[in-house]
Amino acid sequence: MSPMSRHDVQVGPDGRLRHLLTTEGLAPELVRHILDTADQFVSVGERDVKKVPLLRGKTIFNVFFESSTRTRTTFEIAAKRLSADVINLNVGVSSTSKGETLLDTVYNLQAMDADMFVVRHSQSGAAHLIARHVRPGVAVINAGDGRHAHPTQGLLDVYTIRHYKKDFSGLTVAIVGDVLHSRVARSQIHALKTLGVPDLRVIGPKTLLPAQVERLGVRVFNDMAEGIRGCDVVIMLRLQNERMNGALLPSAGEFFRCYGLTAEKLALARPDAIVMHPGPMNRGVEIDSPVADGRQSVILPQVTFGIAVRMAVMSMLGSQA
Amino acid sequence: MSPMSRHDVQVGPDGRLRHLLTTEGLAPELVRHILDTADQFVSVGERDVKKVPLLRGKTIFNVFFESSTRTRTTFEIAAKRLSADVINLNVGVSSTSKGETLLDTVYNLQAMDADMFVVRHSQSGAAHLIARHVRPGVAVINAGDGRHAHPTQGLLDVYTIRHYKKDFSGLTVAIVGDVLHSRVARSQIHALKTLGVPDLRVIGPKTLLPAQVERLGVRVFNDMAEGIRGCDVVIMLRLQNERMNGALLPSAGEFFRCYGLTAEKLALARPDAIVMHPGPMNRGVEIDSPVADGRQSVILPQVTFGIAVRMAVMSMLGSQA
Amino acid sequence: MSPMSRHDVQVGPDGRLRHLLTTEGLAPELVRHILDTADQFVSVGERDVKKVPLLRGKTIFNVFFESSTRTRTTFEIAAKRLSADVINLNVGVSSTSKGETLLDTVYNLQAMDADMFVVRHSQSGAAHLIARHVRPGVAVINAGDGRHAHPTQGLLDVYTIRHYKKDFSGLTVAIVGDVLHSRVARSQIHALKTLGVPDLRVIGPKTLLPAQVERLGVRVFNDMAEGIRGCDVVIMLRLQNERMNGALLPSAGEFFRCYGLTAEKLALARPDAIVMHPGPMNRGVEIDSPVADGRQSVILPQVTFGIAVRMAVMSMLGSQA
Repeated sequence: MSPMSRHDVQVGPDGRLRHLLTTEGLAPELVRHILDTADQFVSVGERDVKKVPLLRGKTIFNVFFESSTRTRTTFEIAAKRLSADVINLNVGVSSTSKGETLLDTVYNLQAMDADMFVVRHSQSGAAHLIARHVRPGVAVINAGDGRHAHPTQGLLDVYTIRHYKKDFSGLTVAIVGDVLHSRVARSQIHALKTLGVPDLRVIGPKTLLPAQVERLGVRVFNDMAEGIRGCDVVIMLRLQNERMNGALLPSAGEFFRCYGLTAEKLALARPDAIVMHPGPMNRGVEIDSPVADGRQSVILPQVTFGIAVRMAVMSMLGSQA
Repeated sequence: MSPMSRHDVQVGPDGRLRHLLTTEGLAPELVRHILDTADQFVSVGERDVKKVPLLRGKTIFNVFFESSTRTRTTFEIAAKRLSADVINLNVGVSSTSKGETLLDTVYNLQAMDADMFVVRHSQSGAAHLIARHVRPGVAVINAGDGRHAHPTQGLLDVYTIRHYKKDFSGLTVAIVGDVLHSRVARSQIHALKTLGVPDLRVIGPKTLLPAQVERLGVRVFNDMAEGIRGCDVVIMLRLQNERMNGALLPSAGEFFRCYGLTAEKLALARPDAIVMHPGPMNRGVEIDSPVADGRQSVILPQVTFGIAVRMAVMSMLGSQA
Repeated sequence: MSPMSRHDVQVGPDGRLRHLLTTEGLAPELVRHILDTADQFVSVGERDVKKVPLLRGKTIFNVFFESSTRTRTTFEIAAKRLSADVINLNVGVSSTSKGETLLDTVYNLQAMDADMFVVRHSQSGAAHLIARHVRPGVAVINAGDGRHAHPTQGLLDVYTIRHYKKDFSGLTVAIVGDVLHSRVARSQIHALKTLGVPDLRVIGPKTLLPAQVERLGVRVFNDMAEGIRGCDVVIMLRLQNERMNGALLPSAGEFFRCYGLTAEKLALARPDAIVMHPGPMNRGVEIDSPVADGRQSVILPQVTFGIAVRMAVMSMLGSQA
């Protein structure tokens, strides 16, 4: 499917966000509007009463066909701080095991007067399929679909970079590790290109980089030292456990030796470079503990900003019903 | 246990509903009062702020000894829209696995100042047992007990029929499929008889109909074409997976051929007949997709009305504490 | 670790409670302050609207690394009655299975602007470890760590005793059963000694009593009849299923014969003695049903008071952020 058709589904003719399915093809002004809206919500988390009534009386379904406590929790918190009613559904263990189709499940929940679906699914395109079938006024947020996209992660990452670096126009950013299997990397690449990062790099072994990844507008490095040199931002990706001893990789230890972020390798980046990771980290595999906990790490601020970015997206989607 | 004793437990001497355990023996005026109350709640689901403060500060426990995400969700939504605090307990995996008895579990939750229990249990009579042991002011809703009853499903079904057909006095209604194992069918039959449906039919193979089912006041058909002819309402039942290749049934395909609702079979009913199903559907087993999604299907409105009916029952039970 | 260091972590230099990790070393006036605060919350549970706005807008995480629906539910209810937003996390099945460390999990949740963690973990010291690493203003409640402590259970037990016996200064209290594996017993012993119970006894077979348990200031009895004689309070402990046919115990039946609380054995205590149990009970193992349900049993009031005590602790911890 072309970016254009995705654009049609997730952005209305009036240019407003109707669903959030991918960062691909999102207009730069829309991305900036999301980030600006998130700015306002960062302060909500610091208040004594961390709630705003923007989505009071709205019903939001966290529909997770693939289990992820961490991601589900961030959306649940964001929704509750907006005063919405949240229903968590771990669908992998319920309806679909009864043989019901994905769309039947969604139609049923929609019939319960849902206002918004937050969807995670192991198959690429699942959130998009749902978005094309819900009725007007019902919004869909993709919380991760297969290897395709995880747009709120991509957006919180650019929010974090903007917070620390202010401007994208002179930045060198590297994404390191298993880009091939990472929906996070895809969403980051699209968001960073949209915001005008001039030097975007992916670093990893050939077996963990997608074929023709340079078509996305990135420079490809198989050598970590070479790729990380001069970077303003180093984004480490999580190495899935199932890759560590698979056909694509000799071992976790070998991966760490070549691509794990250590203080030594980080020293090749700019002195004020920031280190990011979507979590959960495999310490000693893709990242060394002194770096994960070091002064350049902004891994925990990413989490905090992630709540604000999700509140921003939810409030933008929920206020137009 | 006789209908009378059940009546005593679920309806007080003042004629008001104290628990909802079964549709059997409920007075017609009480059923109508529930449906009229539900009418008021249908509009709540369409509002921008879908909440009313009727049960604010009440604590409702969804106690599911048998897992059912879908049914639990409908009660959770209904309770939240009434502003109650809802606690979901999947008890199959906790206390009872520690050897605690059913009543000990309930007494413990009651000691936490519960106002209402929504109970699902694989054993017939479980909700009734609990209702006989809770203290005055605590209400019990049966969300399905063994093969016995699922009264809110029965009530939402008669609500749906009333919505589309206005009056029960001239209706021909058929319930099709595995009546033998269906608590839904039992609750439908009692509710429909109570409201005065003159021609109520059950259709299915002998092996899936209860012995002497005609004693409930229904006409029995083993031939689908014969049974469906002239119907105003066709209610399909879900065929449990475990029946499909069991001793009672040759195969799912054979069942579909004989009793699956296709456009051809539906053409034998009245042209304005409505098609219902409690969900989740087995498409291609008990119902053909073109019928499930067709213009006569009211399967999704059933879901919407189900929230309103559950809100009605909960508000009636919760306001008398 | 010494009581002093624990004291340092859980009580601030101003004498106020910062975390609740153990009843050991808590100042008597602080324990009494918790119980007095709980007094005010007992009435909340009896109200029509069972909510107070003390923790509105606060985010409380129930982080259960060890599953316990019952305990989690009591904290969830307490938090909701204080109007907090509650997030339940069963971490055993999520992040830690992805290889993340305990502290990484906690740091991540803290980055979501958590105000309070309620933590259960199978390892002794887990809650204490977390308390030492959260940032100022974030509170930790130990909901059970290994065999170490379960302080809210200990506090609700002394609340219950105070409710029925008014004064601790003349009491004889016996704790019966598997003291060796019981964090509940440890928390009870410390709380009861703190409040000045002059005659505190533990009763059980040598194999289920800790070595040198008398150092805690208790008298040790291996004979039930001897130990229970003249008691004002009899606290039965739950016998874990895995002990029943293990190396430490011949059988459940043999245990019941020697240490199960029957009417006959209870007759040796004072006529106004109360019977307590933390639940869930093994009827016919550590306690006979007529005693569990008898006039001297205060087992269900313990549950009710437990909500109030948890509300008290949470409100004290949450109001100082």
